[in-house]
Amino acid sequence: MSAPLHPARPASPPPLPAPGEGPLRAPSAAPAPGAAARTLLLTPGPLTTAPATRAAMAADWGSRDPRFVAMSEGMRARLLAVSELGETHVAVPIQGSGTFAVEAALGTLVPRDGRLLVLVNGAYGRRMVAIARRIGRDCAALEFEEDQAVDPDALDRALRGDPTITDVALVHCETTSGLLNPLGELARVVERHGRALLLDSMSGFGALPLEGARPRAVMASSNKCLEGVPGIGVVLAERAALAGAEGWCHSLALDLHAQWRGFEADGQWRFTPPVQVVAALAAALEAHAAEGGVPARGARYRRNRDVLLEGMTALGFEPYLAPAVQGPIIVTFRTPGWLDFSRLYGALAERGVVLYPGKLTRAESFRIGCIGDVDEADMRRCVEEVGRFLGR
Amino acid sequence: MSAPLHPARPASPPPLPAPGEGPLRAPSAAPAPGAAARTLLLTPGPLTTAPATRAAMAADWGSRDPRFVAMSEGMRARLLAVSELGETHVAVPIQGSGTFAVEAALGTLVPRDGRLLVLVNGAYGRRMVAIARRIGRDCAALEFEEDQAVDPDALDRALRGDPTITDVALVHCETTSGLLNPLGELARVVERHGRALLLDSMSGFGALPLEGARPRAVMASSNKCLEGVPGIGVVLAERAALAGAEGWCHSLALDLHAQWRGFEADGQWRFTPPVQVVAALAAALEAHAAEGGVPARGARYRRNRDVLLEGMTALGFEPYLAPAVQGPIIVTFRTPGWLDFSRLYGALAERGVVLYPGKLTRAESFRIGCIGDVDEADMRRCVEEVGRFLGR
Repeated sequence: MSAPLHPARPASPPPLPAPGEGPLRAPSAAPAPGAAARTLLLTPGPLTTAPATRAAMAADWGSRDPRFVAMSEGMRARLLAVSELGETHVAVPIQGSGTFAVEAALGTLVPRDGRLLVLVNGAYGRRMVAIARRIGRDCAALEFEEDQAVDPDALDRALRGDPTITDVALVHCETTSGLLNPLGELARVVERHGRALLLDSMSGFGALPLEGARPRAVMASSNKCLEGVPGIGVVLAERAALAGAEGWCHSLALDLHAQWRGFEADGQWRFTPPVQVVAALAAALEAHAAEGGVPARGARYRRNRDVLLEGMTALGFEPYLAPAVQGPIIVTFRTPGWLDFSRLYGALAERGVVLYPGKLTRAESFRIGCIGDVDEADMRRCVEEVGRFLGR
Repeated sequence: MSAPLHPARPASPPPLPAPGEGPLRAPSAAPAPGAAARTLLLTPGPLTTAPATRAAMAADWGSRDPRFVAMSEGMRARLLAVSELGETHVAVPIQGSGTFAVEAALGTLVPRDGRLLVLVNGAYGRRMVAIARRIGRDCAALEFEEDQAVDPDALDRALRGDPTITDVALVHCETTSGLLNPLGELARVVERHGRALLLDSMSGFGALPLEGARPRAVMASSNKCLEGVPGIGVVLAERAALAGAEGWCHSLALDLHAQWRGFEADGQWRFTPPVQVVAALAAALEAHAAEGGVPARGARYRRNRDVLLEGMTALGFEPYLAPAVQGPIIVTFRTPGWLDFSRLYGALAERGVVLYPGKLTRAESFRIGCIGDVDEADMRRCVEEVGRFLGR
């Protein structure tokens, strides 16, 4: 119980601790032995953050101190500005992961006597169905294959066939596969039928435009395309809908109406916020604006994706998705029969390139993220390391 | 939208930003002009953390990387060790603030057909009543004045009078006032009646022993007496109760059973964890052990409290609580009629001592925290600054 404290970034990393014993911290930002540069997290989040974003976490903040309150309010204003939804909407951050924000939005904004249609082509769509069922909202699912975009005509038929549906939930970019759904078209169908759209843009917000959609709620995260660290979910919610949702939520902690009222009353979080995560997100939003906002960030990620796709294809890997539906956030590759992914993962991790060890698609596959504080050179480094592993 | 990035700790702080404009970050750990030393947060959390704890946040971590998984598992083992509850219990961390952990525990562990008795002598007891009502658990409250401890005889009578009560919820140390409830005695009453005890030890865990109590659940936080940063709640839960609670919870995100099953399956968090907050808590738990665990930490806080009480009393301030019920976590002082607290707050904040701007007691009062990486010299500095403000 009295293991020594380690410096945060030793010159060379100690051996990995066994669970439940030994030093609790091992360095991950420190270069691994033989690695040429910083560690890259090529994952859908937590991801590689900028030094200035991490440096913003170096201070302690009183959560009711006027300076912290001003920082939180500035952060909320910037989040709204990124969405381009304007004054009809408000940004309501909530403690926890993105899923907490999704549950808060569904629980607060879908009426208790409403009926939700979830458009499903991956794990995050399925998760919204699970949330709706758990919290007692009437729910139907319209399902598609994991490599197929949600079809606007099928949505149109579903809404025509069921006038009791009040709300439609869509995943913008399905991190399961990396598929980008046709938001603009789907939003127009929902609008034409007079239903409300709830958009899970967890992995897209900050890099993918809303294509003219005006969802009742957009759910986002501090640590995907905004390049903050994880710990806060965000809902950009229609002010009028939020105002009418007092007491609707099944949960006190996840009550988005009450969370919003708290901010409106005195700028303070209802419950203790993760102050360092807020400071990091505020810094990350400054960097987002300085880079040129959503268009610039989306363009960088598309370049990252293109470099990755070209390089991996040249090495013989086959992308899981067709180019027409491949988003710029994360790329899924089929795992060749001869490849032991865990060996590839371990070899690249040793060299400071951390891939994503976990698959969600039903197909044998692995994923490499294109987001975070990484650029084309970083993606080339990743491809080179894969090539080195393969002996090319 | 393109404000410049500021260094994390400029030599002198910039003017405070107005909400929604200008630079989003202002320094708080940086010494204020004229301050002799580091900024002290004398609040019930977020609080002053140690440099090594903040340094642990400087790295990016892949949340599914084996090194992060090992760190999480080590953290869970240490949390269980701090509780001294042994193998009958498991530590289940959950994303969010302490309230998220309280709602997760009540929602998962109080049976849907159970009846909860909440012992109330402050805001955190009232909050448990609000949670239970919101999530649809049958609930009664046994109320006491805010400056009075929960009375074991009254509890005994309540349990004798109502055999339908299955669970009893108690706040260990009520941060509303700083009052320490008689945990050992109350736990024995609950046990004698064969009911389950759910203990909100948010502000006590890590510094206050359990006095022989074996609660079904102890709810704690990463950033109170453990001296981590905020962003994680923790429930030390009875393994058998947790195992029997599948599907009981009203929420997917706050389902403690599913969260636990996730850790048991592969050591990974079900949903994206705040990786930097986890790293900080792991570092803080090392420091907790190195200091000498619960006894040593509790002793330091009692010394802090005694120095504060003696100094403030000498300056003419009157403590809100009688010595017999005054815990070592936070002290409430009555606000004299002649004192403008906001001026005192502002003057001390300028000098690097941040008090707690917010009262919860019904009496006119203010609070000063004794917890965090602070010692007797820091408390003397606080008292001296108050004296300087008063012109002594």
